[in-house]
Amino acid sequence: MSLLVVGSLALDTIETPFGKVERALGGSAVFISVSASYFIQPVRLVGVVGGDFPEREIEFLKEKEIDLEGLQIRENEKTFHWHGRYSFDLNKRDTLVTELNAFADFDPVIPDSFKKSSYVCLGNINPVLQKKVLFQMEKPKLVVADTMNFWIESMYDELIDMMKHIDVLIINDSEAREISHEANLFKAAKKIQEIGPRTVIIKKGEHGALLFSGDELFIAPAYPLESIYDPTGAGDSFAGGFIGYLAKTSDLSCENMKRAVIYGSTIASFTVEKFSIDRIRDLSTLEIRDRFNEFKTLSEFTAV
Amino acid sequence: MSLLVVGSLALDTIETPFGKVERALGGSAVFISVSASYFIQPVRLVGVVGGDFPEREIEFLKEKEIDLEGLQIRENEKTFHWHGRYSFDLNKRDTLVTELNAFADFDPVIPDSFKKSSYVCLGNINPVLQKKVLFQMEKPKLVVADTMNFWIESMYDELIDMMKHIDVLIINDSEAREISHEANLFKAAKKIQEIGPRTVIIKKGEHGALLFSGDELFIAPAYPLESIYDPTGAGDSFAGGFIGYLAKTSDLSCENMKRAVIYGSTIASFTVEKFSIDRIRDLSTLEIRDRFNEFKTLSEFTAV
Repeated sequence: MSLLVVGSLALDTIETPFGKVERALGGSAVFISVSASYFIQPVRLVGVVGGDFPEREIEFLKEKEIDLEGLQIRENEKTFHWHGRYSFDLNKRDTLVTELNAFADFDPVIPDSFKKSSYVCLGNINPVLQKKVLFQMEKPKLVVADTMNFWIESMYDELIDMMKHIDVLIINDSEAREISHEANLFKAAKKIQEIGPRTVIIKKGEHGALLFSGDELFIAPAYPLESIYDPTGAGDSFAGGFIGYLAKTSDLSCENMKRAVIYGSTIASFTVEKFSIDRIRDLSTLEIRDRFNEFKTLSEFTAV
Repeated sequence: MSLLVVGSLALDTIETPFGKVERALGGSAVFISVSASYFIQPVRLVGVVGGDFPEREIEFLKEKEIDLEGLQIRENEKTFHWHGRYSFDLNKRDTLVTELNAFADFDPVIPDSFKKSSYVCLGNINPVLQKKVLFQMEKPKLVVADTMNFWIESMYDELIDMMKHIDVLIINDSEAREISHEANLFKAAKKIQEIGPRTVIIKKGEHGALLFSGDELFIAPAYPLESIYDPTGAGDSFAGGFIGYLAKTSDLSCENMKRAVIYGSTIASFTVEKFSIDRIRDLSTLEIRDRFNEFKTLSEFTAV
């Protein structure tokens, strides 16, 4: 099985109550690819960076067996830069700077060798580009897409159109309400499923996630974290762990999707323990499995 | 095993986006007792009502095998009356009228025949009165207490003092933060456990509940409801189902407490489906068991 990831690569400056990092590795494609690499290798990445993108990070991605054939490097431009600051309780974040740079006119060209990828993860980019990626693919087995409030507000019709071509939409609770115009999340998910994706995952941060697959519902807990250092990339890590596990197992049953949700939650729970991508640069199989099992212990009960 | 419930009996006028009921049966002791009665009978109730308390509701409580020996009926006074209005999304409620009436100088006198009750549930009343109840009891096996922001804000020291004498505190997330001065719920629970109760349950409404028992943590899902008609009494129903199941099984292991949390959630999920106490006036064993099993299906996943 092969996995294609399309999205942004960024150099992020992030301020949280616990400190600050400058021009640290970020972007949806980075978090998704690295997270997925713990389940399936290689991961095929399509994105764009500028000449300032550190060589050591290129090496890091290669070490993770991320295939960079689809990475455009524009030597005379700069990499996408985001500077954000989180509130003291991490529930709010202000964007101080967004410099799109090389990402501004990103045109995702899928290399021929990537076109038969059976699993596709569309990171949070313009829905028109997400659709453009899909039109270059040859019968993928599963397409997962992420989006955000910015696209819901600025390109609603294009987003709805894109959603008709995907299998799984991963969004957070406020985005689900915004897309569906429905306050109740169970009703919201049904409406979104009617638009297109058979499976909808609604992330609720510290309250876990809801998986709606066909008529089935699975309620996943969140990992109990006493301190969150940096929430950046948690959603992308979730998506990467989710699709990485599905690609590895090549089993799209609801039972397996439940496990994939827990693996996504597992990787995301590591991501937020340190700044940027630092906590998931080098996870061990054992620590991933241990945390997966912890999720089981946390939510399991027996009937008598 | 025997269960004592102390709390309020009320006639509530409730407005929600779905309609209005006037002077409907309510109060913490009513919701707790009726909920617990599905697990253990009789339930011993201590409370006070006025001469206007409907005879038919006395009969209803008796039919539920609720022992009213401890119910004070003050013929010349009126029953506690609360009039509340919920916001369109039910997340906020405004109190329009509170008439304490007979409840104003409620002095919980425990009949001798109730003093050896092995399970005690202290509904949300003045913490000084909660403590006064406990001092009349003879070595109960388990004491569960509920409280609310009103007491946290007006009688903090008395509340902390009361908490030293109980085994289980049931509160919602904002109350947990207010008691502990700690935003993170996992840290908040630990702080509360250090004050006194070995077990703390934090209810998170549509996001389920957290059970902290000793060093163990259990994350319970909420039942997926597309419509909530009236949230009044949900927390008390949770407490009643929780302690009722524990009293029935007389097993205070963490594993059994997890089941008790799910039974509490089960009864609460019925309560909010209709106004006042109407949905739980006559539940069948089968519908309770079916919903308990639904909770299991909703949160269960298997490792491979």
